[in-house]
Amino acid sequence: MALSRFEYVKQFEEEEKLLPNCWIVVRIDGKGFHRFCNVHSFTKPNDLDALQLMNFAGMTVMQEFNEIAIGYGQSDEYSFVFRREASVYQRRRDKLVSYVASLFTSAYMFHWKRIFDSRSIDMRYPPSFDARAVLYPTDENLRDYLSWRQADVHVNNLYNTTFWNLVASGLSNADAEKRLQGTLASDKNEILFSQFGINYNNEPIIYRKGTILLAKSVRVKDKKQRLIVPIFDDLISDTFWVKHPEILDKKAKTDDVFDLAENHTQPIILYQLTVQERRKAGHNKGEATKNLLETGSS
Amino acid sequence: MALSRFEYVKQFEEEEKLLPNCWIVVRIDGKGFHRFCNVHSFTKPNDLDALQLMNFAGMTVMQEFNEIAIGYGQSDEYSFVFRREASVYQRRRDKLVSYVASLFTSAYMFHWKRIFDSRSIDMRYPPSFDARAVLYPTDENLRDYLSWRQADVHVNNLYNTTFWNLVASGLSNADAEKRLQGTLASDKNEILFSQFGINYNNEPIIYRKGTILLAKSVRVKDKKQRLIVPIFDDLISDTFWVKHPEILDKKAKTDDVFDLAENHTQPIILYQLTVQERRKAGHNKGEATKNLLETGSS
Amino acid sequence: MALSRFEYVKQFEEEEKLLPNCWIVVRIDGKGFHRFCNVHSFTKPNDLDALQLMNFAGMTVMQEFNEIAIGYGQSDEYSFVFRREASVYQRRRDKLVSYVASLFTSAYMFHWKRIFDSRSIDMRYPPSFDARAVLYPTDENLRDYLSWRQADVHVNNLYNTTFWNLVASGLSNADAEKRLQGTLASDKNEILFSQFGINYNNEPIIYRKGTILLAKSVRVKDKKQRLIVPIFDDLISDTFWVKHPEILDKKAKTDDVFDLAENHTQPIILYQLTVQERRKAGHNKGEATKNLLETGSS
Amino acid sequence: MALSRFEYVKQFEEEEKLLPNCWIVVRIDGKGFHRFCNVHSFTKPNDLDALQLMNFAGMTVMQEFNEIAIGYGQSDEYSFVFRREASVYQRRRDKLVSYVASLFTSAYMFHWKRIFDSRSIDMRYPPSFDARAVLYPTDENLRDYLSWRQADVHVNNLYNTTFWNLVASGLSNADAEKRLQGTLASDKNEILFSQFGINYNNEPIIYRKGTILLAKSVRVKDKKQRLIVPIFDDLISDTFWVKHPEILDKKAKTDDVFDLAENHTQPIILYQLTVQERRKAGHNKGEATKNLLETGSS
Repeated sequence: MALSRFEYVKQFEEEEKLLPNCWIVVRIDGKGFHRFCNVHSFTKPNDLDALQLMNFAGMTVMQEFNEIAIGYGQSDEYSFVFRREASVYQRRRDKLVSYVASLFTSAYMFHWKRIFDSRSIDMRYPPSFDARAVLYPTDENLRDYLSWRQADVHVNNLYNTTFWNLVASGLSNADAEKRLQGTLASDKNEILFSQFGINYNNEPIIYRKGTILLAKSVRVKDKKQRLIVPIFDDLISDTFWVKHPEILDKKAKTDDVFDLAENHTQPIILYQLTVQERRKAGHNKGEATKNLLETGSS
Repeated sequence: MALSRFEYVKQFEEEEKLLPNCWIVVRIDGKGFHRFCNVHSFTKPNDLDALQLMNFAGMTVMQEFNEIAIGYGQSDEYSFVFRREASVYQRRRDKLVSYVASLFTSAYMFHWKRIFDSRSIDMRYPPSFDARAVLYPTDENLRDYLSWRQADVHVNNLYNTTFWNLVASGLSNADAEKRLQGTLASDKNEILFSQFGINYNNEPIIYRKGTILLAKSVRVKDKKQRLIVPIFDDLISDTFWVKHPEILDKKAKTDDVFDLAENHTQPIILYQLTVQERRKAGHNKGEATKNLLETGSS
Repeated sequence: MALSRFEYVKQFEEEEKLLPNCWIVVRIDGKGFHRFCNVHSFTKPNDLDALQLMNFAGMTVMQEFNEIAIGYGQSDEYSFVFRREASVYQRRRDKLVSYVASLFTSAYMFHWKRIFDSRSIDMRYPPSFDARAVLYPTDENLRDYLSWRQADVHVNNLYNTTFWNLVASGLSNADAEKRLQGTLASDKNEILFSQFGINYNNEPIIYRKGTILLAKSVRVKDKKQRLIVPIFDDLISDTFWVKHPEILDKKAKTDDVFDLAENHTQPIILYQLTVQERRKAGHNKGEATKNLLETGSS
Repeated sequence: MALSRFEYVKQFEEEEKLLPNCWIVVRIDGKGFHRFCNVHSFTKPNDLDALQLMNFAGMTVMQEFNEIAIGYGQSDEYSFVFRREASVYQRRRDKLVSYVASLFTSAYMFHWKRIFDSRSIDMRYPPSFDARAVLYPTDENLRDYLSWRQADVHVNNLYNTTFWNLVASGLSNADAEKRLQGTLASDKNEILFSQFGINYNNEPIIYRKGTILLAKSVRVKDKKQRLIVPIFDDLISDTFWVKHPEILDKKAKTDDVFDLAENHTQPIILYQLTVQERRKAGHNKGEATKNLLETGSS
């Protein structure tokens, strides 16, 4: 069978390579998640478990690529920022975009039972995500990109929090929508406070700010190790960037140990620690993962 | 929070659109499937269940996009051919490539238990696939592309079948490799026949030719319906293209009923029929799918 | 001086290659030719000399690339159609687009005096052209592209002919514009005929149809030779494509001699013959060209 | 004539836009200039007039685009650096690359007689240039790009200077080539000095460093005006960039008057001054240019 007679068709493959020395953002977006959330009875306006599942998927992608400087997730989207000098797949666009989308999806499904078994939510159809790659030439452009996503979650979450409280109080969806038409942020804060006794700033920070993922050295039981760490913080202000200089400058990496503080109970932290303990206990990686899957850990 | 101050970063998104009136091939490839097969004890050189699982994933993608003219799977890869006139996502490269990769992955995991529960194979880590889009301007180029992939499965499968038979007969992997070095197809056929009594042409056709997926009208229990149909055939010769003119020419679609023949017991056929029956029985799609997942059907 | 320290910057060069097996159209467009025509007192609505100069530039590009199947010029634009299989510069976009633009510009200036000396029109500032490359996957798409350009010259020329006759008859530009607002082709034909006694179909065909350039074998003084030949014809109808099958199918090239008929006096024909005679007379190409430039030939 | 029936072909035009906020370098390269130099008897290894003609073409491009931060020419190539924020043609690749190539070519031909009339060198065939666009995300990348081109002229010019002196001393081209094989820069400096009494560092700086073009405010006859100024300097060292901060930072533009010093007699300076004087004297631009062309000014 003359393979060679047909091989010319390989020439039709274009291999676009992403411009060197630019930040590469790969952003994942849920496809049709409005319906997916309804079918699986996710809580509105925020389902903490669903967000934690997104974080598991984000963690998996971060573990796979050590050239990711920062991950950022909110709602049904996740952004992964590859370093300027990243050489992953020789920066080939198709491969990078498709593989990150596939791995994220795969991890999302892999950890589903860990998250949702206690609520007896079975997955009823396969979810999916699309992805795109965007290049940013300067550090400022990159920070503005991340700020854009974090400002977006603020705007949406304030709206949704107010909307669903109005609905819970008896308004129809249409009436709640009408009530909020043309309102400013301050108006929504006022509705929440005066009508529902809610101080928006006391809402869980993961809802208000999304989840930042960084690879950090942490100390657990007197042992230093490298984990993917969830951080809930304002990344628009300079303070954040001063605190984590290694994001923009790889060489700025310090040996300093990062203090997990109250985040030491975050599901993805507990999961990573359990995997490491099992591995230490002599199991190979595959087995450890398998057992975890069967027993759950959240 | 000034969303607008940051919104300029959207301008950095390039939206490459794939050239109109070309065939678009999206090809999915397993990432690190050598290891994935080993960890999950897939049979060598071919694991029929694993191939059927790939077909389930292929079927899901075909169901999602009615602009796919033909799907073709072999080993850990799957090609989906979008029609020249396809307008899916306005032919945006990133979106198409990432979404197909994500959906394929998702379906692969979703149907895992259906396929592997009887063999008690749990998924031990999340698999992933990359994807690429390739454009072909002429029908001849497209046929040559598909011929290339089918010639590839022939070359690989003949080699692997001989190799693993040699190993099963006691040779080390290294010795089997040495034995095959420089051999022609005819030599391998001869080894198989004289040493192992195997007539290669009698090997299961799914191993030798891969799986072709087409959307066809079939008659089941006196009712005509449209299914994604697996076909095991030589697609290099003209005969195949004469038999299925609707692939290259959408308007050539006939109302003729396609005869499933012995393929009416193929797992993806049985699955589609069961889903339809449940749906008919008053269940909505989500419930049907859920029940199927829980009970299995293979 | 450490050249090597800086050489990494070469990696930033992307080399987009145009998809194989597609027709490549490179279209040249005059930059700011409205002003250029005014400054150089070109006749309105058509300046035959200016069109002939465009044809000289088109001829030069056709002579340089034997992979051009057809050239088509009208107004201040020229399209060059590279064959599907063209391998020029490995189909690198930047190189092809920029070089054709540069060579066209260069030839336009080089032949300026040949055309305009008799009218004592000196070039007062350097003209320029931009270019773009467009891919067409099928023969039908290509024919439609050329039809589009020829339909465009018809629409524009009918308008312009009527407009400038109205102006010549005493209307202001604004009044002529107003007079033509909302008129159909038939209306303009009627104005031309009833008001100015002009039968539009008798207008010079080069104005109505533009110039087609083909490489043809012609017989001049009993000697067969290959020339770039101007053709004034309707390329929208099938007749044209039947007459010149070698455009779409390189192998259809016949040895038949093309009859120049009345076009044997076209300036680019006379020029090519003169160059060949001088060359035959022992002059090298450079000298021949130089002499031609000095003496003029139109 | 149904224009609209064919207009769909416009959809096939891709408009690649160059990534925002990157430096855009458009580099022009002479096509086949080895032959072009021979046919027109340019002096070797450097022809000062030919380099000045390149500078005229470079000046014309700089005058056309006020978003060019710096131009740099050497041998038969010229680089134009568009600012990060440049919005020229919405950063469309084809348009930018082709137009710069066309305008450069056009200006090269337009000023030919001005430069070469005194040597009675007629242009014997139309020269041409190709162009490419390259993006640089950081200031450092851009400086390294320019350093690369200037290091290149050094390496080539030292070689060529030595080579042609060897040839002038009687060696055949082949022997001169052999003599230089494997030699270091220091070896070539030594040959020049010991064999020909030439101190390479005293060679004209335009040959050793190429020509930098900047838009500067200069004072001529007590009047301040903005001119495209040729600068002969080392641009690899920091000193240059400190001296001309406006290249990297548009806002750093000072009102300071740039001292032309000995460069006030450079041909492109004299030309620009003459054009301005004529314009001041009541001529419009076209006429001034026309007169200049006819009388010459070098």
